This record gives sequence, structure tokens and C-alpha cells, in this order.
Amino acid sequence: MSQETGVYDAMFHPLSTAEADRVTALYAPLADAVRQLIDATIRTETDDDVVAKARGEIEAVTELLRQRIRPVGVSFRVEGRTLPLGNAVVGLCNPIAPPVVVRHDGDGRCSSEFVLGCAYEGPPGLVHGGVSALILDHLLGEAASDGLSKARYTGTISVKYLRGTPLGPLRCDAWIDRAEGVKVFARGTISDATGVTVEAEGVFIEPAWARELE
Amino acid sequence: MSQETGVYDAMFHPLSTAEADRVTALYAPLADAVRQLIDATIRTETDDDVVAKARGEIEAVTELLRQRIRPVGVSFRVEGRTLPLGNAVVGLCNPIAPPVVVRHDGDGRCSSEFVLGCAYEGPPGLVHGGVSALILDHLLGEAASDGLSKARYTGTISVKYLRGTPLGPLRCDAWIDRAEGVKVFARGTISDATGVTVEAEGVFIEPAWARELE
Repeated sequence: MSQETGVYDAMFHPLSTAEADRVTALYAPLADAVRQLIDATIRTETDDDVVAKARGEIEAVTELLRQRIRPVGVSFRVEGRTLPLGNAVVGLCNPIAPPVVVRHDGDGRCSSEFVLGCAYEGPPGLVHGGVSALILDHLLGEAASDGLSKARYTGTISVKYLRGTPLGPLRCDAWIDRAEGVKVFARGTISDATGVTVEAEGVFIEPAWARELE
Repeated sequence: MSQETGVYDAMFHPLSTAEADRVTALYAPLADAVRQLIDATIRTETDDDVVAKARGEIEAVTELLRQRIRPVGVSFRVEGRTLPLGNAVVGLCNPIAPPVVVRHDGDGRCSSEFVLGCAYEGPPGLVHGGVSALILDHLLGEAASDGLSKARYTGTISVKYLRGTPLGPLRCDAWIDRAEGVKVFARGTISDATGVTVEAEGVFIEPAWARELE
């Protein structure tokens, strides 16, 4: 974090494809283990002495991992594209990401199937409405930007809640609805086994610098 | 999880105020320790042997905490109100919640100051746009429902991105704009040190069963 501004500066650390594969294979299973720990932390009813022991061991592991660490704001790039290992929705190495694994089906359509456990809860037994917005925002952005390969800024996103979304297995679909000049309109849904629970529409804008590159 | 429907059923575990205080004091520091571990997990560059050791120890702690555990979908209630310890935005015992601590300023106004670290990243150095939507959805809901004390379902929420939101210290404000029959319109913003970065408007609806109770 910059001492002067209080904000994080973004820097890039380029990786070869082989290095990116090695980094992912090494750290993604660690993030998976932390996802299990998050679930256990929310649901545990163990006694004071067990909790104290667990806390001490978690702090020791944190110190271990901090022996060598990237500064905040440093991101990986592979062949000029961002490798979003730490992304809050799709980051394989970010324990708070479910993670959502996005499948691109061509023509700007994309989809994902995932399971949301109790870490994503809002009302009891239901997915937090904002978590649905978070995932839709990401998938609409992937659709509008051709898998994040084109520069597109989110202008606005509107999310309509049809009914509560239950925790458990879900899917998200997103597609390009239409383009008008520098604007791309994308739409998407979240569904459970019985149908759509949440709909979204977003407007994504191609920045002037990207238009000048074309 | 129900075997038949594949969805989690919600159940309530009533606590006295004293029990709620004890549970929060016991488990909130555990969640804090896991938040530090999440940050270290994303940023670590330690070698294979250290990662393998860390992973083994995390799995052992998870087993320890799972010795006694609540089923998924069981929520605490204190004096008839939900105690959202596991909530994805404000849950003190949920490691993926920043947590956002909401201050109610009267007249349906509420606000929060918080710090978002690299776990909430989208574009390099910036907060994921969907994370801004997640936090705004929560705070607008708090404003519209008088601190979640009244039943209000989110109908739609629209989020407008004015510029990128930097990781670091931020604030969120929300307030009731107007009420029309069963609909409450709430608005809100996320700001960094130099001003508003994201705006939102949401429509919240009082369900028929709540109107009949009044």
C-alpha cells in the first residue's frame, strides 16, 4: 500500500505459461484447504480450548506462508493477459472465490456450474442477494469482454431478484444481448434445479484508448 | 442438505443475549485469524515444502474444528431476531466477510467504514465491481428494512460505476430515498478518500404476510 495515498498500486509480474501452470498447481490446492477451513470456522461449535488451539495453529501457518510474499497489488500476467489467480470470483488461489470456473461457449455466451456453501449465506439457508450480484457482474463482464480479452468497463448493472436462491448447486449463464456503438449490453441469469432465481442486465463500455488501438 | 431437493433447509437455534455474546467473543477472533490466513494464502510465494506443510496443518485444524459442528442452514436467533454471525457481508464469524460493521444513524440512514484487501480484488489493484455491488446490496437492504428488523425483499438493485474503486480504506453510505405503497426505494454510494466511486439504487418490497401482521 502506498504510504502517501493509502491506496494500493497495481504492478505486473510476467510469467511464462509453464511458470503459470506451476504456480497454479502449487497454490490452488492450498486455497482449497483454506476453503474447507472457512466452512469449518463458520459452523464449529467446539469448546474454548479447541478454538484457542486452532487459532494458535492458524496464526503459525500464516507466519509460515508470510516468509516470502508478494506485495499487495502485484498481479501475474501470462503472454500479456492478466492471470486472475487472486480474483474474488474466479481466482483459483483466492479462498473467498467459490471459485467460479467460467466456460466460454462462443458468440459471447458463457456459463458456470458451482456450489455455494454457508460462507455465501445472507438470509438463513439462502444465498446473499449481493453474492448473486457479484457472480452475475463477473459473468456479464466475461461475456461482454470476450473472456476478459477486450477492454470493457462496467457502466451499470441491474439485478432483479425473482425469488430466494437456495445454498447448494447453482448455475450462471451470461450472453451478449446487443451492441450499440461503444456500448455492449449483456444479460444473464442464476438458476437452481427448478429454474431462474435472479436476472441481470449490464452495460459495458469500450474505453477511448482501446478504440484508438483498433 | 436435503437429499431429495438438493437445497439446504433453514432452521433456527435460539440463543439468550448472554449466550450470543459468549459465542461471538469465542468465534469472532477465530474468523479474524482465518482472514489473515486468506490474505497470506493469496500472496505467498513460499516453496513447495512450506506449502505442503502449511496445507497439512490447515487440514488438521479443519478436522479439529469439525469435531463438533452445526449442520449447514442452522442460524442463530436472539430474542426473535436473526443473529447474522455467518452473513457473507457483516458476519463477524464468517472469514469471507470483511466484515462490514454497519452504523445506523437514524431515519433509515446507515454507513460503514472498512478496508478491502487483496481478497476482494477484481482488476489489478482495484476492488472487484461485483464486491461493490455485494456491499451496496447489503447496506441498501439495511437502510430499507430498518436494520433488518422489518421484512423487506430486494426487488431490483441497479449499480452504476463512476470509476475504479481502489483496494484500501473505503466507506459505504445508504439511505431511504422514498416509499410508495409497499415499495421502499433506497440509495447508496461507495467512496474512497477522494469521493464517490459507485452509486446504487434499490427497490425493496414488503411481503404480503408482513403487511397482514401490522
